[in-house]
Amino acid sequence: MNKLFHALFEPLFEPRRIALIGASADEKKTTARPQRFLRKHGFKGEILPVNPSRSEIMGDKAYKNLEAIAGDIDHAYILLNGKDAVEALAACGRRGVKVASILAGGFADAGAAGASLQDDLARIVRETGIRLVGPNSIGTVSTDPPMALTANAAFAVDRLRAGSWAMVSQSGSLIGALLSRADARGIGFSRLISVGNEVDLAVGEIADLLVDDPKTDAILLFMETLRDGERLAHAARRAHAAGKPVIAYKLGRSEIGQELAKSHTGAIAGSDATFDAFCRRHGIARVSMFESLVDVPALLVDRPPARGKRVAVATTTGGGAAMVVDNMAMAGLDIVDPPQALVDWLKPLGIAAGEGKLVDLTLAGAKPEIVAGTIERLLADDGNDAVIFVVGSSAQFNPELAVEPLLKFAKSAKPFAVSLTPSAEKSLALLTAAGVPAFRHPESCAEAMAVCLLRPTPQPVPALAEPARGALDALAAGRVSGFDERCAADFFAALGVPVAKALAIPDAKRIAAAVAEIGGPVALKILSADIAHKTEAGGVALGLPDGQTAAVAAREIEKRVKAHLPNAKLEGFLVQKMERGLAEVILGFRRDPLVGPTITVGLGGVLAEIYKDAATRLAPVDETEARQMIDEVKGLATIRGYRNLPRGDVDALAKAIAAFSALAHQAFADVSEAEINPLLVKRDGEGVVAVDGLVILSAAKDLMPVAIGD
Amino acid sequence: MNKLFHALFEPLFEPRRIALIGASADEKKTTARPQRFLRKHGFKGEILPVNPSRSEIMGDKAYKNLEAIAGDIDHAYILLNGKDAVEALAACGRRGVKVASILAGGFADAGAAGASLQDDLARIVRETGIRLVGPNSIGTVSTDPPMALTANAAFAVDRLRAGSWAMVSQSGSLIGALLSRADARGIGFSRLISVGNEVDLAVGEIADLLVDDPKTDAILLFMETLRDGERLAHAARRAHAAGKPVIAYKLGRSEIGQELAKSHTGAIAGSDATFDAFCRRHGIARVSMFESLVDVPALLVDRPPARGKRVAVATTTGGGAAMVVDNMAMAGLDIVDPPQALVDWLKPLGIAAGEGKLVDLTLAGAKPEIVAGTIERLLADDGNDAVIFVVGSSAQFNPELAVEPLLKFAKSAKPFAVSLTPSAEKSLALLTAAGVPAFRHPESCAEAMAVCLLRPTPQPVPALAEPARGALDALAAGRVSGFDERCAADFFAALGVPVAKALAIPDAKRIAAAVAEIGGPVALKILSADIAHKTEAGGVALGLPDGQTAAVAAREIEKRVKAHLPNAKLEGFLVQKMERGLAEVILGFRRDPLVGPTITVGLGGVLAEIYKDAATRLAPVDETEARQMIDEVKGLATIRGYRNLPRGDVDALAKAIAAFSALAHQAFADVSEAEINPLLVKRDGEGVVAVDGLVILSAAKDLMPVAIGD
Repeated sequence: MNKLFHALFEPLFEPRRIALIGASADEKKTTARPQRFLRKHGFKGEILPVNPSRSEIMGDKAYKNLEAIAGDIDHAYILLNGKDAVEALAACGRRGVKVASILAGGFADAGAAGASLQDDLARIVRETGIRLVGPNSIGTVSTDPPMALTANAAFAVDRLRAGSWAMVSQSGSLIGALLSRADARGIGFSRLISVGNEVDLAVGEIADLLVDDPKTDAILLFMETLRDGERLAHAARRAHAAGKPVIAYKLGRSEIGQELAKSHTGAIAGSDATFDAFCRRHGIARVSMFESLVDVPALLVDRPPARGKRVAVATTTGGGAAMVVDNMAMAGLDIVDPPQALVDWLKPLGIAAGEGKLVDLTLAGAKPEIVAGTIERLLADDGNDAVIFVVGSSAQFNPELAVEPLLKFAKSAKPFAVSLTPSAEKSLALLTAAGVPAFRHPESCAEAMAVCLLRPTPQPVPALAEPARGALDALAAGRVSGFDERCAADFFAALGVPVAKALAIPDAKRIAAAVAEIGGPVALKILSADIAHKTEAGGVALGLPDGQTAAVAAREIEKRVKAHLPNAKLEGFLVQKMERGLAEVILGFRRDPLVGPTITVGLGGVLAEIYKDAATRLAPVDETEARQMIDEVKGLATIRGYRNLPRGDVDALAKAIAAFSALAHQAFADVSEAEINPLLVKRDGEGVVAVDGLVILSAAKDLMPVAIGD
Repeated sequence: MNKLFHALFEPLFEPRRIALIGASADEKKTTARPQRFLRKHGFKGEILPVNPSRSEIMGDKAYKNLEAIAGDIDHAYILLNGKDAVEALAACGRRGVKVASILAGGFADAGAAGASLQDDLARIVRETGIRLVGPNSIGTVSTDPPMALTANAAFAVDRLRAGSWAMVSQSGSLIGALLSRADARGIGFSRLISVGNEVDLAVGEIADLLVDDPKTDAILLFMETLRDGERLAHAARRAHAAGKPVIAYKLGRSEIGQELAKSHTGAIAGSDATFDAFCRRHGIARVSMFESLVDVPALLVDRPPARGKRVAVATTTGGGAAMVVDNMAMAGLDIVDPPQALVDWLKPLGIAAGEGKLVDLTLAGAKPEIVAGTIERLLADDGNDAVIFVVGSSAQFNPELAVEPLLKFAKSAKPFAVSLTPSAEKSLALLTAAGVPAFRHPESCAEAMAVCLLRPTPQPVPALAEPARGALDALAAGRVSGFDERCAADFFAALGVPVAKALAIPDAKRIAAAVAEIGGPVALKILSADIAHKTEAGGVALGLPDGQTAAVAAREIEKRVKAHLPNAKLEGFLVQKMERGLAEVILGFRRDPLVGPTITVGLGGVLAEIYKDAATRLAPVDETEARQMIDEVKGLATIRGYRNLPRGDVDALAKAIAAFSALAHQAFADVSEAEINPLLVKRDGEGVVAVDGLVILSAAKDLMPVAIGD
């Protein structure tokens, strides 16, 4: 925490003098709400309504304009629309207001006219140095000291519950939804902020502030898009180091969801796999159920990262626990047997716990000392990484008795959670108040435990060596003449990906010599900058065993191509060694507009496309991460030793992936996409070889920055 | 409804004279609960406690034994354990008690000794004709007239809410959990019954009774296994005809869940895919979230089956609706644009609804008449099959106002549901009370709508023709000599599946003639009853182009096999035409212990195994259903016209699947498994051909019956 931090954090979350520009005296109006809610929830600072036609609003002195206010203004909430809002922001900038928020939508979220207005906002921010929340921000709220600077109807609640989790949301209305859901569970927040269109302050920078906020120990994000990925990456890494989990719900898991996120906020939503890759690299826990945003933090705050994914489950209700277990197993967790020490301890009590993976105490074992003794022994066992206790009807009828033996495990070093099988609001409240993570649905309990145990920790970003001279040369050549097959192959080879041996020859006469040099069988491809689709033009022949056959094929190719495209300028042939492998891999590099450079590995061929079987990471990756990617592609089991099939050269594949991912280097910033398809994986020890590929350069020079790490 | 129905239904659900055998006078004991709960919830009939050491219990006259009670006993609840329970059941049988229930576990759920006791129960049922619920049944409850014959602590509630949905559960404790969850939502039940180990009365027969129960209009099942599949199939079909949805939650979606269901109840759980096939065939709606059991019925009761899967969504909270939509899209539903009529109607109101698939009324459109008008127009539109309205913060702060415009759509012919974005219990209660399906999680709303629109209707069971003589002969031959490759091929061919042309020859001398007859290339396989694994023994050669090559290969095979297995008796060779196809399919038939004959179609080869890409149905299937199976196998897209790939002969494949599924015929009852792998699919019009396969006969004669339809 430093001066710069305070210069932004305090006016944003703990302002003392707040101007409300366009505040209404009509209490029914939305623009009257900020003043009402500030008062209602006990704001102790000064409220400065600005309204040209009033001298007083709800007991506060009102000002004709900003200039009429003496002294510093920490935060101004602009409640005007369109151009009026732009003018107000300009006035704030001139006046030296530290932070402004704008309530109104109708900017980039509403077509071209709005986008132009939004550009005006961005210009004012640039020129005056004022910091801006929004537009389209329904407000910013702190609970301690209370500061409910918001027009969100959800803050009409009588009491604003304080807590230590902060919520940052790209959707204003979902702040209210989460507030109410958390409150119903006895959970409060430290800060809640609606970031709107993020012209200036975006999720990442705000999350970064919250890392240093002593009142906040978990950062929850509701996201529709990602506008400041670099800053969020930075914040997530700092949060991890500070022991504050960052937990994100993001719309757009389905394609239609992505479209909606787009139309809803005027932003591009990005693909779901790249956002997952972003979360994984930078240590953000992503949840798939909305209420998990309030369900999950208790499992993560103040606990060391989990060591594995083995869960021990004890219960007094076999059926209820079986539901939790079924869902956890589907989420990829392992359920483990109870330790012998527990089995031995339970036996004389008449409880047979060794027969399944569940420790079913049954009704007979529902005594507090048995429950507590069971959980103690499970938590002490090195054979699991987390413990769940599933409570039955006692949670409903005897909440105090049912939860009493569980409360002391609130501070367990290992994740410990309680799942309630019946509807048992009282038990839920008691457990929550005591800090014991408790769940009311088997599905949400399973999701939370999966997020807890499988959540990523920030991964170091591999250092990139200076690119090889050859790669820079090939890229330079490609920039001039375009990336034909030959040029792409040179580029990939220079990056360190083995490519199939090939020779370019000017005419068919040299074919026999070329085949002799390369060794048959070969593939023959027409070379012509005028022919984009060689196969369709009849310009390709495969599997030619010797020079003679190749010569015949070359004549046929020429004949076909001339018939098909009489005006194409032919530049000879590419003679390429036919390669075989155990598996075909597709390797893709792409600069994603949201998260920056990404690399994708998938099984090649049509089936892989159908099964969408691929692993995506932020680029670059090192060989270790490349190995993890290979392991994640299901179909590559065929080269990992599945069912006695011959092993492929997975090490060489990992090396090739890592080498290809070096495209993330700034020197290659105009490579917007590159693909090798197929990359053939040979037997273990025999390497990999790229057979075909392409490189796409970005026309525009407004390139995306390389995503950074820490 | 007939006499037989009343003879069982009335003593089970509406008994007038109930004996409580082993009733305790100690109110704290579990065995005192049935009497307490009967009284507490207003049972109007006679309670007859049986306890040798008391003359009165809780105000009721107690009897030394069953014989001391005069007159008919409708239902006896046996509260004794082990052998005492068995003796009590025998006494009930002798005494002419109509229905008995047994509370105690410790029978087949508890190892060999318990299983033997359970056999005793089954024998008594057989011999005396008494009907039995349990053992391990925590009780049977009706709400109107009230009859809480249960030891389930969950019935300690002060008030038992009546309703029109019945719950049948293989888990006793989950009855309490669902009761409490439903009650918290303002939902009651008509009947709740814990079926325990199902020695006699099982889920199917009870569901069948409930179809004729005038107090019940939806049947909910909590299942761990399936013990009377035929009866449940019958019941589900009758329920569908009666307009009563049958909705099932079944444990065991994960493998560990299957194990748990097994250890928990002493039953086999069965594979999840076969239970899905069972539900699909017989029209059971399967849910994956526990609370969906109470969430889903309101969407199904009293509504015609949905015509499609197109959902229209309107909202006042874009973010909240986007969450519902994202989840629905992932569940396989289509989200459709609003009709022009609605767009035109909203435009003069200042609401732009035509820009996305959501009709976002925004806060401006939250007026009752706009909400109601929007929903009316969506429900009237032929372009969707269901409508969802997503409510924002108004549901929390102004429940009456928020729900008022929604209530009138409770009886809409088309499914209409409301999803509440904030925590809004009052709105939820108001909507539920009015009969409007309402949801408190975006995930549960999406699941319920998916279940509603995608739920299966009962499919007719295809009639099976009498088996061909040839198939019976081949089976008879296989029974005698075992099913070698030759014999299996004859069997499959006689069933109607084309098989690769092949000749068996006694020695290598005949090879040239055989190859000439079949046409090369051929495969050569050693024939020997002594060699189980021909390839491992070196007994196979593939791709032999002509007689000469084949003769050489035959000598090499003989040499290899003799070296490898010097004592094997060689019976010559099988010369088989080498076939090629566009795709390899695996076709499997299996008599599942729970659901009966099933058929599975998957992509052949190792990748398909890795991706678990297969479709399973109850056998037999007709060609129409076989086509649906083909469409369900993702990897078979390659022969369905994907990306200009040549089309395979899907018609011939469907014919082969249907023909193979005729193994479900009783005449083949001892075929426990059969598999063709691979079945090659050739180009459209060129057919399919089976290359290899196997048939497994059941050794035991305790065969499963063929699953029936209606």
